[in-house]
Amino acid sequence: MTINTGFENGIVILGAGNVATHLSIASKQAGFPIKCVYSKTIKAAKELALKVDSQYTDDLRGIPLEADLYIIAVKDEIIELIVDDLKLDYGTVVHTAGSISIDIFKKKFQNYGVFYPLQTFSKSREISFENIPICIEANNELLENKLLSLASNLSKRVYKIDSEKRKSLHLAAVFACNFSNHMFSIAQEIIKHSGISFDLLKPLIKETAQKAIDQEPLNAQTGPAIRNDENVILKHLEMLKDSPDFKKIYRFVSDSIFNLKNIE
Amino acid sequence: MTINTGFENGIVILGAGNVATHLSIASKQAGFPIKCVYSKTIKAAKELALKVDSQYTDDLRGIPLEADLYIIAVKDEIIELIVDDLKLDYGTVVHTAGSISIDIFKKKFQNYGVFYPLQTFSKSREISFENIPICIEANNELLENKLLSLASNLSKRVYKIDSEKRKSLHLAAVFACNFSNHMFSIAQEIIKHSGISFDLLKPLIKETAQKAIDQEPLNAQTGPAIRNDENVILKHLEMLKDSPDFKKIYRFVSDSIFNLKNIE
Repeated sequence: MTINTGFENGIVILGAGNVATHLSIASKQAGFPIKCVYSKTIKAAKELALKVDSQYTDDLRGIPLEADLYIIAVKDEIIELIVDDLKLDYGTVVHTAGSISIDIFKKKFQNYGVFYPLQTFSKSREISFENIPICIEANNELLENKLLSLASNLSKRVYKIDSEKRKSLHLAAVFACNFSNHMFSIAQEIIKHSGISFDLLKPLIKETAQKAIDQEPLNAQTGPAIRNDENVILKHLEMLKDSPDFKKIYRFVSDSIFNLKNIE
Repeated sequence: MTINTGFENGIVILGAGNVATHLSIASKQAGFPIKCVYSKTIKAAKELALKVDSQYTDDLRGIPLEADLYIIAVKDEIIELIVDDLKLDYGTVVHTAGSISIDIFKKKFQNYGVFYPLQTFSKSREISFENIPICIEANNELLENKLLSLASNLSKRVYKIDSEKRKSLHLAAVFACNFSNHMFSIAQEIIKHSGISFDLLKPLIKETAQKAIDQEPLNAQTGPAIRNDENVILKHLEMLKDSPDFKKIYRFVSDSIFNLKNIE
């Protein structure tokens, strides 16, 4: 494996969770050596380090100082703590969070940016980086090119997106991923009580996503809410009377489906 | 094409919408002749009739009386009107609706049932029936076997589901399909205002559905709500302050994600 130019001194990964795991494995495979994995949990650091053939540590002061890139891939709320504690003489640092501005690095670093892969990751689930949109931001052109080089070696889909736009994208991703997934969870809860297997809903879930991808979700909408079929809607609300959360969601999402159709 | 035994006199399709179109094309292809298509709109009746090589009419009193099966595939709220107006001396009748009980036929017919394909259909979108779950119900065993024969010639996945269970399934399908699709629509609305292409969200939508299918949605959940990350949640609510529907949905779905995790 050839080592990519500009990354001869390797990458340090701060974090060993879902994003850190997939990003470092993909980087390693694309010829970007991982120098060290840091995690506050030594077991997690070691586990990932073994996969990417790197050093590991649970001490921020113990990370190598000469690496080419430091990627902070931890939960959003911990990024600031890492930034506060990270001591680097020089060195380039990025985070991978959709909702955090590039400015979090402003006071402390000279070269900094964001490297945001827009996907839902689970450690145990394999995923190819090739089609994952990677959103890049940097505080200078030299670094921007460096990040573009890394990103385009991992994925065919690389975008320059500033912090404001990335925040919108992250909010949209919460709806498109977390909230749609919760609709699947509620569906499963509803049929579980009738003893029906979740397998019956799988072809519908697959087609719903594919249809939204192929013809845009606004054009793909069907069902009682968009028809404003109050007869069915009221029957459904009655069926949900013992599940106040689901009932509220049913009412508000139905209203919103109807309202959005009439705004467009 | 061999004509399937018991269906030599053909099927009459009442309706020419999304379900009627896909169901009659698939039936025709599987060797079940379509005798006649009825729609209150003659243009729609003709259009479908041409596809399945059948007669067509916009007059309920004009449909053939000797067919083997009458399939009512119209909007839920119109089924009762069709049932009231349908004059058959004998003849077997089913509807295709998730939310309507089999009992709608009780007062008027001797042989009746339900033939519910659990999928989202659009006329213009091709779909293979092979993997679509078809839920069957009949008021007698002879008809049940007849419907099972039709269904199993169209799909590998045929289930006997009574009216009560089918209602749950239909409610679940509203969440799994219409409501998840609306989450995709909201995502699109949010990024549209930032000038970001919906293409960026497509790999996420595809993976979200596939993950829910492979590992069940409750286990697949990620994001700020399940982490109870109030910091991110409050920032997102602030971003949605000019979209009251989306803000309400954000708050209630986030609460429900967190609550469901803690019930399970």
